[in-house]
Amino acid sequence: MKSSNVTRVPHLVGEAERWARQGHRGGVLWFTGLPAAGKKTIAYGLEKRLFESGFDVFAFDSARIRAGLCSDLGFSRNDRRENIRRAGELAAVMARSGVVVIAAFISPFEADRATVRKAAANYHEVYFDVPANVCETRDDQGRYARARAGALADFTGVSAPYERPEAPEVTLDAVNLGVEQCVAQLAAYVERHFRSSEP
Amino acid sequence: MKSSNVTRVPHLVGEAERWARQGHRGGVLWFTGLPAAGKKTIAYGLEKRLFESGFDVFAFDSARIRAGLCSDLGFSRNDRRENIRRAGELAAVMARSGVVVIAAFISPFEADRATVRKAAANYHEVYFDVPANVCETRDDQGRYARARAGALADFTGVSAPYERPEAPEVTLDAVNLGVEQCVAQLAAYVERHFRSSEP
Repeated sequence: MKSSNVTRVPHLVGEAERWARQGHRGGVLWFTGLPAAGKKTIAYGLEKRLFESGFDVFAFDSARIRAGLCSDLGFSRNDRRENIRRAGELAAVMARSGVVVIAAFISPFEADRATVRKAAANYHEVYFDVPANVCETRDDQGRYARARAGALADFTGVSAPYERPEAPEVTLDAVNLGVEQCVAQLAAYVERHFRSSEP
Repeated sequence: MKSSNVTRVPHLVGEAERWARQGHRGGVLWFTGLPAAGKKTIAYGLEKRLFESGFDVFAFDSARIRAGLCSDLGFSRNDRRENIRRAGELAAVMARSGVVVIAAFISPFEADRATVRKAAANYHEVYFDVPANVCETRDDQGRYARARAGALADFTGVSAPYERPEAPEVTLDAVNLGVEQCVAQLAAYVERHFRSSEP
């Protein structure tokens, strides 16, 4: 912290009380993978599925955050780092409030993902294991083609690197599994890991 | 937005469904006022009171945010502006998820508060109407005294300005009302304005 002229008052509502009331703990499902791997589609599908199962759940993705919290940032290395750092802090605060947060971000760098892991309690990394050539067939906006033609700079998977996660909690085979199967697999994962009223 | 190489996927869980399930809408109670006016004490007291009344509620203050989301910022005019902007975006996202957000920030500038009002749906400004001489008697850390002695720069109310809100939704007489009375007044306000399952 840059200054000491702030004071702290602790929360009077504990995590245990929040979890007991809602029947699950808060935490973060962090989706990482190449553009057009299916992260957003599965994020919002999973949000709906978990909501219907009674979870306090909220999904957000890079587009949403770049339109608000990170509207001052671009796609340079430094700006990407800061984008992920802020998104991670947002996810951490929401998880602290008891919500199951689903965050869909390309987040290509291991160091940046490590920052989020450190900031957020109960962090679960979900790696969308889909190679660039498959993503390109799903990219209905033609971004891969434009990037290959040199018309889109800093496009992850073509003109910018993606570092495969070293130790994700979940590696999702989103090549061979369909959307519904991916959602079902992750919903079952959340039921196993988040259904606890004990901090 | 600085780039167009992002795509949007809409939420599949609507606000109406969230509000119907929890029995209230999301929104922001933005506490503004001088240092040591009592914002944090009442924020966390109100959070507890509303939680016990069944609300999805979460409070945060500047100290928390400056330790995480805004850890790169200081107290210059530009940094204060950016601190409030990011806090407002955080509040806006949480309110969008259906939570009653209580945000306690000195937020001395009308222009900065206007930015938050614009970012957040269902924004309610609560002005802690406590003059500096009363705040100073509540300041158990002696910050007012240090600021008067010139040892604390950019301290709002002494060495930095505070612009009184032009049109707050609530003006709280936190001079003559005790903590419990302030909490009760604001809880009644939230019951009136947030108990709706219709967007």
